[in-house]
Amino acid sequence: MTRIILRGCNGRMGQEITKLLKSDEQAVIVAGVDLHESTGNGYPVFTSFSACNVLADVIIDFSSPQKLNEMLAFAERNQLPVVLCTTGLSENDLAMVKKASQNIAILRSANMSVGVNTVMKLLKTAAQVLAAADFDIEIVEKHHNQKLDAPSGTALALADVMNQVLNQEYDYNFDRSRERKKREKKEIGISAVRGGTIIGEHEVIFAGLDEVIEIKHTAYSRAIFAKGAIHAAKFLADKVPGMYEMSDAIG
Amino acid sequence: MTRIILRGCNGRMGQEITKLLKSDEQAVIVAGVDLHESTGNGYPVFTSFSACNVLADVIIDFSSPQKLNEMLAFAERNQLPVVLCTTGLSENDLAMVKKASQNIAILRSANMSVGVNTVMKLLKTAAQVLAAADFDIEIVEKHHNQKLDAPSGTALALADVMNQVLNQEYDYNFDRSRERKKREKKEIGISAVRGGTIIGEHEVIFAGLDEVIEIKHTAYSRAIFAKGAIHAAKFLADKVPGMYEMSDAIG
Amino acid sequence: MTRIILRGCNGRMGQEITKLLKSDEQAVIVAGVDLHESTGNGYPVFTSFSACNVLADVIIDFSSPQKLNEMLAFAERNQLPVVLCTTGLSENDLAMVKKASQNIAILRSANMSVGVNTVMKLLKTAAQVLAAADFDIEIVEKHHNQKLDAPSGTALALADVMNQVLNQEYDYNFDRSRERKKREKKEIGISAVRGGTIIGEHEVIFAGLDEVIEIKHTAYSRAIFAKGAIHAAKFLADKVPGMYEMSDAIG
Amino acid sequence: MTRIILRGCNGRMGQEITKLLKSDEQAVIVAGVDLHESTGNGYPVFTSFSACNVLADVIIDFSSPQKLNEMLAFAERNQLPVVLCTTGLSENDLAMVKKASQNIAILRSANMSVGVNTVMKLLKTAAQVLAAADFDIEIVEKHHNQKLDAPSGTALALADVMNQVLNQEYDYNFDRSRERKKREKKEIGISAVRGGTIIGEHEVIFAGLDEVIEIKHTAYSRAIFAKGAIHAAKFLADKVPGMYEMSDAIG
Repeated sequence: MTRIILRGCNGRMGQEITKLLKSDEQAVIVAGVDLHESTGNGYPVFTSFSACNVLADVIIDFSSPQKLNEMLAFAERNQLPVVLCTTGLSENDLAMVKKASQNIAILRSANMSVGVNTVMKLLKTAAQVLAAADFDIEIVEKHHNQKLDAPSGTALALADVMNQVLNQEYDYNFDRSRERKKREKKEIGISAVRGGTIIGEHEVIFAGLDEVIEIKHTAYSRAIFAKGAIHAAKFLADKVPGMYEMSDAIG
Repeated sequence: MTRIILRGCNGRMGQEITKLLKSDEQAVIVAGVDLHESTGNGYPVFTSFSACNVLADVIIDFSSPQKLNEMLAFAERNQLPVVLCTTGLSENDLAMVKKASQNIAILRSANMSVGVNTVMKLLKTAAQVLAAADFDIEIVEKHHNQKLDAPSGTALALADVMNQVLNQEYDYNFDRSRERKKREKKEIGISAVRGGTIIGEHEVIFAGLDEVIEIKHTAYSRAIFAKGAIHAAKFLADKVPGMYEMSDAIG
Repeated sequence: MTRIILRGCNGRMGQEITKLLKSDEQAVIVAGVDLHESTGNGYPVFTSFSACNVLADVIIDFSSPQKLNEMLAFAERNQLPVVLCTTGLSENDLAMVKKASQNIAILRSANMSVGVNTVMKLLKTAAQVLAAADFDIEIVEKHHNQKLDAPSGTALALADVMNQVLNQEYDYNFDRSRERKKREKKEIGISAVRGGTIIGEHEVIFAGLDEVIEIKHTAYSRAIFAKGAIHAAKFLADKVPGMYEMSDAIG
Repeated sequence: MTRIILRGCNGRMGQEITKLLKSDEQAVIVAGVDLHESTGNGYPVFTSFSACNVLADVIIDFSSPQKLNEMLAFAERNQLPVVLCTTGLSENDLAMVKKASQNIAILRSANMSVGVNTVMKLLKTAAQVLAAADFDIEIVEKHHNQKLDAPSGTALALADVMNQVLNQEYDYNFDRSRERKKREKKEIGISAVRGGTIIGEHEVIFAGLDEVIEIKHTAYSRAIFAKGAIHAAKFLADKVPGMYEMSDAIG
């Protein structure tokens, strides 16, 4: 049984994970940590790690960059791996995470879903074969009308994974309306659509001479990110120190 | 039998029209006008309207704004309707066209295909009903990697046709990457994808609370624009002076 | 304030409606009727209409054909309109419904969402214009892997709405694998995809000479059917006897 | 310079290859073989291999099963590899091909395009990872209204390539309308859409718990099959005897 400490337990994703784990036979939440007090989760909630004295195997963090250092110090002190799902980390935060990974296992991914990470795996092969056969690469992502950033972190991560196998030779183009000119060969256009309550769609388009290949992921609920985080926590519980990615966990 | 003078007969679209009309029983090209001389079209080609002395019922123009005034003067003098498929007209050109339409019938559309114009018809209803039900509107268009302008004229025309029934209250947003903020209620996002040899795809997305409606047009060859221009020429041949649109011709 | 009696209040859709109406300022559930007793809904639940003595303006029925006659008798006796969302009605049931509609207003639709009903409206225009221009019509629907029937009732309703404006001249084709032959001009192919937890996607394809138009509806949650039923109830509360459809309610 | 003998040179695909090779600097057609005589191709055309006395490096066959044995005998006698693009081969024909491959290199694929064969490569990984994660697999293909067979040979080949990595445990389901029942876990549904002039679209859908991955190939012209055949001919020209597939040629 994997014992989990859940940071950000009162947030939307924290509650998704709480719900899913109620019927899980291989993992259990032994404590929550959240800036706000709460009851009714079925596990004790602490407002700070300094008060948390519960035995555990792994931490899942779905909160904010705030107090990241406190969590990492606690994890290092107790030799706990961390599944890091928090977004918006600064350069400083990332340096702190990297340093901590010398002592503990840390898994961090732009997107926690099994589906998106399988797409990333496919894109490595697709980008290599198709760029060599002169296909152009484009990405279109769609999200709900409350999202603040554009393009999405996941869209950028998809572009990055392809750029890696393409020797980092591609630039990203977010807007073609300002200049009247042909597309550059070595660019990846990334378009962001916003509307309604769309959870998240990512489509990668490979356009060649008279043929097009599209690889598309559609999320129908946020449960897929909770499910992925739990999957990652089980995977990470017994791993040696270092940085991990979701792709390591989906084998 | 509708007798057609084809301006721009040596260009790509001019040749498409020439090919299609070879087996048409209701229309025929009686003369071509083109800056460059040519033979082998099966009809005489003049480098200027001043030399063109052939009886005709209608002009199809698939050339460039250059010498637009010469064509309009010829059309007015001979009372010939004009199907105007040339793009890139300046404000001045458009004023000239409008003035000429007091004396002759002129049909002008951002896109000549029956399909796109049917989509425009549908969008009027869709935009009215769905904007009232709180759906957000977005457009994604895809074209080949040689296209200079973005977004496409057709994408803008689709947005305009919706904005008309929405009291012109919507702004167009071509790039969301520069500002970190939520989507505005009264905006239409327009994204331009470029790659390979894609002839033209236009997708309008209506995104509401937990449901999405998409209306999409895909062109598989430029023949559809030639076909539409011929359809328009037959329709326009006997019309009274004024400005017409493709939507008038598809009834 | 529209007062609603909700038949089938303990089912999945009944609970969706109960949840949505908790924060609605124009409608309220005054009683539930369900074969199974229950508490905690915030309104009294009766196991039969004979026990239900609550003043109301309209009934929403999201249950099963069982005891349909009891509900209709109650509605007629109390002059209550009925929003009939129950599926699987027999020929007999439908005759009973039709007879009741001489005394009360009854609204019945294959699909209660505003989006699907807007699509139906668009399809009437699209089918008429595009069939005349020689486009072929096809439908592809996608649903979760627990669904028993194929194709979906909504897919058939979409086909029906087009066949109506096409003089009922089209046959439906559910399987092309058994015969080696060309497509018939006057047929609508209907394909059913099943997988995962897909709530419901319906795509209508108009395929012509070198161009294709697609009109697609995607449902992201069952809330859209609950929302539609509530919308219909408010609309129907003051209507004269007769049969109504969702399209009447979305104006 | 790869010297090609083109069987079926007067057919639609033969002419596509002829056109493409006019501007190719690494391959040339040295002779055509076709049941019908013809001139104007820029190379001699023989009505039978017995009359063909031209030196060559490889044969491309885009004709019909008729006289297959004559071609194979010629190829074996002259030690010429064969790119076999002809469809509709019988069990007998296939046995003959297999036997010939002991003496010469033969490449045969359900679909000659680089894009479709890249998709096949991706599907091996996708099917393995996603079936293990409980995703259901479905295929939808779309073709023009003149096509006789359904589903397409390419759709079946896509299913086969996945079934191979899934231990041949999956059945194919072409029609769900005849039985009222839930989807079987180990089946691949294959739907065939027919309409207009659609060249060929193949979409593979992986549907899981609240997420869907789609991999889609769209052909915009038949040139992609000609291009693929030429690519295959250059690849095969110096290969040792045996059966090859397009996937071998796209590395």
